Amino acid sequence: MFYFDPKLQYEVRVDTPDPRFARLLQQAIGGVEGEIRVCLQYLFQAFGARGPARYRQMLLSTGTEEMAHIEMLATAVALNLEGAPGHLQDEAARTNPVVAAVMGGMDPRQYLSAGMAALAADANGVPFNGSHVYASGNLVADMYANVTAEATGRALACRLFELTDDPGMRDMLRFLIARDTMHQQQWLAVIEELGGHTATLPIPNSFPVEEEHRDVSYDFVFTGVSGVEPPAGRFTQGPSLDGLGTFRLVPAEPQGQEPQLAPPAPQAYAQTQQQLSDSDERQIL
Amino acid sequence: MFYFDPKLQYEVRVDTPDPRFARLLQQAIGGVEGEIRVCLQYLFQAFGARGPARYRQMLLSTGTEEMAHIEMLATAVALNLEGAPGHLQDEAARTNPVVAAVMGGMDPRQYLSAGMAALAADANGVPFNGSHVYASGNLVADMYANVTAEATGRALACRLFELTDDPGMRDMLRFLIARDTMHQQQWLAVIEELGGHTATLPIPNSFPVEEEHRDVSYDFVFTGVSGVEPPAGRFTQGPSLDGLGTFRLVPAEPQGQEPQLAPPAPQAYAQTQQQLSDSDERQIL
Amino acid sequence: MFYFDPKLQYEVRVDTPDPRFARLLQQAIGGVEGEIRVCLQYLFQAFGARGPARYRQMLLSTGTEEMAHIEMLATAVALNLEGAPGHLQDEAARTNPVVAAVMGGMDPRQYLSAGMAALAADANGVPFNGSHVYASGNLVADMYANVTAEATGRALACRLFELTDDPGMRDMLRFLIARDTMHQQQWLAVIEELGGHTATLPIPNSFPVEEEHRDVSYDFVFTGVSGVEPPAGRFTQGPSLDGLGTFRLVPAEPQGQEPQLAPPAPQAYAQTQQQLSDSDERQIL
Amino acid sequence: MFYFDPKLQYEVRVDTPDPRFARLLQQAIGGVEGEIRVCLQYLFQAFGARGPARYRQMLLSTGTEEMAHIEMLATAVALNLEGAPGHLQDEAARTNPVVAAVMGGMDPRQYLSAGMAALAADANGVPFNGSHVYASGNLVADMYANVTAEATGRALACRLFELTDDPGMRDMLRFLIARDTMHQQQWLAVIEELGGHTATLPIPNSFPVEEEHRDVSYDFVFTGVSGVEPPAGRFTQGPSLDGLGTFRLVPAEPQGQEPQLAPPAPQAYAQTQQQLSDSDERQIL
Amino acid sequence: MFYFDPKLQYEVRVDTPDPRFARLLQQAIGGVEGEIRVCLQYLFQAFGARGPARYRQMLLSTGTEEMAHIEMLATAVALNLEGAPGHLQDEAARTNPVVAAVMGGMDPRQYLSAGMAALAADANGVPFNGSHVYASGNLVADMYANVTAEATGRALACRLFELTDDPGMRDMLRFLIARDTMHQQQWLAVIEELGGHTATLPIPNSFPVEEEHRDVSYDFVFTGVSGVEPPAGRFTQGPSLDGLGTFRLVPAEPQGQEPQLAPPAPQAYAQTQQQLSDSDERQIL
Amino acid sequence: MFYFDPKLQYEVRVDTPDPRFARLLQQAIGGVEGEIRVCLQYLFQAFGARGPARYRQMLLSTGTEEMAHIEMLATAVALNLEGAPGHLQDEAARTNPVVAAVMGGMDPRQYLSAGMAALAADANGVPFNGSHVYASGNLVADMYANVTAEATGRALACRLFELTDDPGMRDMLRFLIARDTMHQQQWLAVIEELGGHTATLPIPNSFPVEEEHRDVSYDFVFTGVSGVEPPAGRFTQGPSLDGLGTFRLVPAEPQGQEPQLAPPAPQAYAQTQQQLSDSDERQIL
Repeated sequence: MFYFDPKLQYEVRVDTPDPRFARLLQQAIGGVEGEIRVCLQYLFQAFGARGPARYRQMLLSTGTEEMAHIEMLATAVALNLEGAPGHLQDEAARTNPVVAAVMGGMDPRQYLSAGMAALAADANGVPFNGSHVYASGNLVADMYANVTAEATGRALACRLFELTDDPGMRDMLRFLIARDTMHQQQWLAVIEELGGHTATLPIPNSFPVEEEHRDVSYDFVFTGVSGVEPPAGRFTQGPSLDGLGTFRLVPAEPQGQEPQLAPPAPQAYAQTQQQLSDSDERQIL
Repeated sequence: MFYFDPKLQYEVRVDTPDPRFARLLQQAIGGVEGEIRVCLQYLFQAFGARGPARYRQMLLSTGTEEMAHIEMLATAVALNLEGAPGHLQDEAARTNPVVAAVMGGMDPRQYLSAGMAALAADANGVPFNGSHVYASGNLVADMYANVTAEATGRALACRLFELTDDPGMRDMLRFLIARDTMHQQQWLAVIEELGGHTATLPIPNSFPVEEEHRDVSYDFVFTGVSGVEPPAGRFTQGPSLDGLGTFRLVPAEPQGQEPQLAPPAPQAYAQTQQQLSDSDERQIL
Repeated sequence: MFYFDPKLQYEVRVDTPDPRFARLLQQAIGGVEGEIRVCLQYLFQAFGARGPARYRQMLLSTGTEEMAHIEMLATAVALNLEGAPGHLQDEAARTNPVVAAVMGGMDPRQYLSAGMAALAADANGVPFNGSHVYASGNLVADMYANVTAEATGRALACRLFELTDDPGMRDMLRFLIARDTMHQQQWLAVIEELGGHTATLPIPNSFPVEEEHRDVSYDFVFTGVSGVEPPAGRFTQGPSLDGLGTFRLVPAEPQGQEPQLAPPAPQAYAQTQQQLSDSDERQIL
Repeated sequence: MFYFDPKLQYEVRVDTPDPRFARLLQQAIGGVEGEIRVCLQYLFQAFGARGPARYRQMLLSTGTEEMAHIEMLATAVALNLEGAPGHLQDEAARTNPVVAAVMGGMDPRQYLSAGMAALAADANGVPFNGSHVYASGNLVADMYANVTAEATGRALACRLFELTDDPGMRDMLRFLIARDTMHQQQWLAVIEELGGHTATLPIPNSFPVEEEHRDVSYDFVFTGVSGVEPPAGRFTQGPSLDGLGTFRLVPAEPQGQEPQLAPPAPQAYAQTQQQLSDSDERQIL
Repeated sequence: MFYFDPKLQYEVRVDTPDPRFARLLQQAIGGVEGEIRVCLQYLFQAFGARGPARYRQMLLSTGTEEMAHIEMLATAVALNLEGAPGHLQDEAARTNPVVAAVMGGMDPRQYLSAGMAALAADANGVPFNGSHVYASGNLVADMYANVTAEATGRALACRLFELTDDPGMRDMLRFLIARDTMHQQQWLAVIEELGGHTATLPIPNSFPVEEEHRDVSYDFVFTGVSGVEPPAGRFTQGPSLDGLGTFRLVPAEPQGQEPQLAPPAPQAYAQTQQQLSDSDERQIL
Repeated sequence: MFYFDPKLQYEVRVDTPDPRFARLLQQAIGGVEGEIRVCLQYLFQAFGARGPARYRQMLLSTGTEEMAHIEMLATAVALNLEGAPGHLQDEAARTNPVVAAVMGGMDPRQYLSAGMAALAADANGVPFNGSHVYASGNLVADMYANVTAEATGRALACRLFELTDDPGMRDMLRFLIARDTMHQQQWLAVIEELGGHTATLPIPNSFPVEEEHRDVSYDFVFTGVSGVEPPAGRFTQGPSLDGLGTFRLVPAEPQGQEPQLAPPAPQAYAQTQQQLSDSDERQIL
């Protein structure tokens, strides 16, 4: 179960409120790279964790930390929506600053739906979608999903850093970027302690590899048309990373046949013309 | 641009059609671990690829291969929906086998909406959602996203393998599982050729690390309440994977303050009671 | 069944078309606080109404009225998108006013997809989503859902009122705000005639309260960490609103155990490393 | 910020695992009546709370409690998916119990995507959608949204109670139903301490009522065709609940005109035939 | 504006309630081929109709009829969920028929969320999505969208007809199928009265055809690899349907170049390795 | 299966990059009128094609062409996001051009999520949704769906043409508009070769028309209230387009009864007050 402290994990300060930046921050709250996603992802991985209890504890711990990040970012949104800088307030006799902000790039739903606060949505107002909560039941697959989340999350935070000159906002982002630095490596450290590539690949490593068609397990299949030079790299030559084979470059070609589906079943209510045999059909043309 | 050959990349054969398995295959077509997703993901990464042309070519090649996998799986769905095994056809005088199948676990929309064919949806009929197409503009973040997709995709294919005894379907899955084995390692091989952890972490490695709050960049922040034993592991001690610091275990505590938001702006149309100061409010209670 | 009169329920007049306001009006059409939602919500409650026929009639009546509100708002959108004010038309030789509008804050899909008309979407272009149609089969739960819809709907209309100076648009909004005033009280009046809090709580009141764990039915569980002052209020003391108990303030503490899940089943294809017992795992570290 | 205790708020015990019940429990996790929704809803209301600090604290407290409910339900799902009862295990030589469960009504994605664990989705596998997080910035609108969530949530829990005979599951539901009893009244108690109907209606009460068209503010507009008897009730007569008017029954009739939209603008690329005037058009017919 | 008559447009009678059929009917309510979609589609086309008033009237008329079809189908769902046939009621001492139904193929949310009534969702419980409301501002494009909706809608109704033996349900479907017969031809009749193919193609016909690259306007571009026989048909030869050209068969080949994107901008935070020139990169390999 | 050529189907050139136009192009990539939709739609129709093989080949061919259009548009987005025009670069010392672009109308996620590249989303950032992939199993229904897609797609391309002055972008659009011209007629040509209206209507033509209620199969049901003049047109008179009947104008009137639902079942947990009979209820009022 969970507890709260009303204090924030790190200070959130906005020196010059900017309602347009409030919109951009939404991506870090409800976007696919955002904090609601990692919070729920790590917690659902913990709630379904089977195997060593240590990993459940680690996931609960970081999932709980991410809740504090949602809180920080939602607070940052609320503060950025507050009032308007002095020079705008002077204009307010003639021009309504709320109107100006809504018209000038802020998310209108932060005002219309939330009365000047954050939404559980991304920078375009698309609501958070639970299908991005990856919890596969396979520890290594999940660790890679978590690295992905933290890699795209840190890229997002760096890009947000670029979009603001506000010292308070930059200070908050310096903290969040540093936490993402840790979280990326934390999940990769799990893979390392499980034995790295040779011990964990292919994922899942519990499926007997002899059941798969081993003749194509290390082929880089090149689907370029003839005349196009295939790319060369570590992935076309040398031992495979699982230590069990050798990468090869192989041009694509069909090993299967042209599919032959049965004619439509009567109860599927295709058109009657679809019932023609190909030979009948050829006569008609 | 693109070309097609009407032949399949690998043979798709269904020995005993099973409309319930046709439903389960949908997850591999339109689910988050499915082939539409990886096809579009690799192609969008290629379409937006900046930097060495070699990676664009690699992404185009594998994205194009994944289209062939969508085709194979959609064909497998259509074949599994065809007719019904002989012993059911005998019952058909009394019981409509279509009714039985629709009622007994198949996806009703494969019949109602598609007339016995595949949908661009997952095993629960939830339509494919483009937000799962990760193409971040950062090559290493994308490679980890691709490993995740192939790791969860191979887990899915192994689980589907478990759910069918049909020799044709198992043969097709052996092929697809083998291709996932390759694709996992293909993306990891790119990270290796870029120099591995020390050369690629933290992601993005183009953001100057001195800009982040380095004092928390390698801390495992433990959010358990007092009395709970923190987890120990590679992620709480030893050098960080980027070679730039040392992992530490640090108990969580607030570094920020309790947030103080401004009272509601008049135009936000909060309730008038929200305008009370805390001291006024205390008198009322 | 239903009939139409081509006249509008109330006059819709736009004195100075403003394509940016056309975007904002979308929230009142297809947003969660919007008219498509209440229209379908009241009609679905009517279509499934069990119990006194009077309520079915009331719901049909107001659901049908809401259709007229969708019509008014969609008409308002179309009129706001018409042409451009005179002073812009002079600029049009140099600057295309359509371009200017699309670039300057209007919803581009009102032009790109609808050719200058309304969409079934919200102010950010997110399509209307049927999951917001609450029709629970429980009359009182539904009445509260309806009050919520009209409370957030009236707040939205008031905020839109703030964002326009157009006399026609303000006149239309004055009408819609007044109708929301009525609708809020209409649903609350049903709860009053059913007997108010003591006769309707807890919802559903048909579940025997002795089946629930009565020892926690009136506890305000405080989850703040130690040292944080709990909030006091009507909800921490005095008789409960259903007249059956007394509110109490109780600090949170776990009554359950740490969950122990079984190890992964073989067919779930976890990593082999997840099969280690905790003691084996400890040796490895 | 937040902390966790690895123990559950209340015991979760499954005496006889039932994978079909695991599917139904998903509605209480990721459905519109579910715990992810109330958790995020109360926390976002807290994060954006303006006005008396007491309410922020109350919302943080209960939002944090709801996280523990997500945890309990996700644990219940995982336990219901574990193994199969003894008599099924005997059958397993012939029939794969996983296959049977997936085919017989469980959510296939709990196996295919999660390897036997909970998803952030509803009982039909539709992912949680952030648009259900209502945080309007208006305290009373939010309280009604919260009552709605707890009323539909308690109805859901009662219906789940009906669908299981498992003593452990029923015990957990007795606890959750009791908490919903409290939470319904907790939010209504806030409305009571704010002064009840007369002090809070219409919502928002900060919009000057004289700005709205008061002549229709208390009219039950009856849209039935002539000959249909209008419903009578508290909502058609007597003083309005805000104490400012009197309910009336009024038959619907149009107060507006037939809308006249301008002809299509050239750049909208309507068909040329849409440019005909009505009179030209009449000649053609 | 709109009015209701509490009577249904056509009788809805269920002789033997079948909760599984109640699930299938959802596709005709909230699916992409369903009645909510056509209702809103025709009404939004009417609300935004520019040009001859006659079409606005026609669209309002049929859109209003479709509301009555939603009502009929929602009523059919409610009736199919009522009770259980006699022989099941005898079993009820041992087996709960609600449990049996929920477990045996009905939509669990019709019980869990709606208390035995219809949802605004499809047969898999996916909520209605407003993006299917096509109203393009181009009359002929809209007519084809409407024909599509009625063609897929009638196919759906025929398939539902196949899935029930209930005389009442079949009678209702005979009515709805007949109405779809009319509606398909109604929209095509508009195209006929506008002058048919030569007067309406290409859509939109208000864009000057000389602005498009006329050399490819009638080419069937064949993208099959060499050796694959191209399909022949009306679309590869003879005059084009707009009367302005001649169909041709042309093999696909690239007319464009390999795209050259600029290197990543610094503020996009790609990996530093993406900044390598191709020649530098070649040295490294 | 599929192959790629790294060259584009047609040249994509951007003379003056415009990040705002990059946003608008998204509608043609991931919108309902966009290229991902038609690509998947034609391919899924091909993958499930039953009947003459010729149509499978035609669908594969054009579906493969549409992939090349996604590629062209995604390339156009990336090029429009590149750098900023010279006069902005001069300002860059004071004003960050990225900030300006993100704030001034571009899709922020093209920068935040994609690092200056295209998304699988529409012009409002709403992700592509697989439910728009229509593949009904009925050839003629599918052809009309395809005409709709190409009619709305060409209207979209014409509107985009209006929104740019860039010679390169206009050249690309001239090509795409011409291809849409062909594709519209290609699908209509199939209907012509199948025999046109009389041979294909009603859709599906395999359902025996005598099974439907023929007395309403050609009625234009007018739902206007009395006093409103019904629209006249080809759809109210003359022979039906299928040659089997005659259009008529018929005023709407209910043929069904007021629905009578059973009282709520106990396990549905309605309120106890819903159990009152109407007569009991009348006494209470």
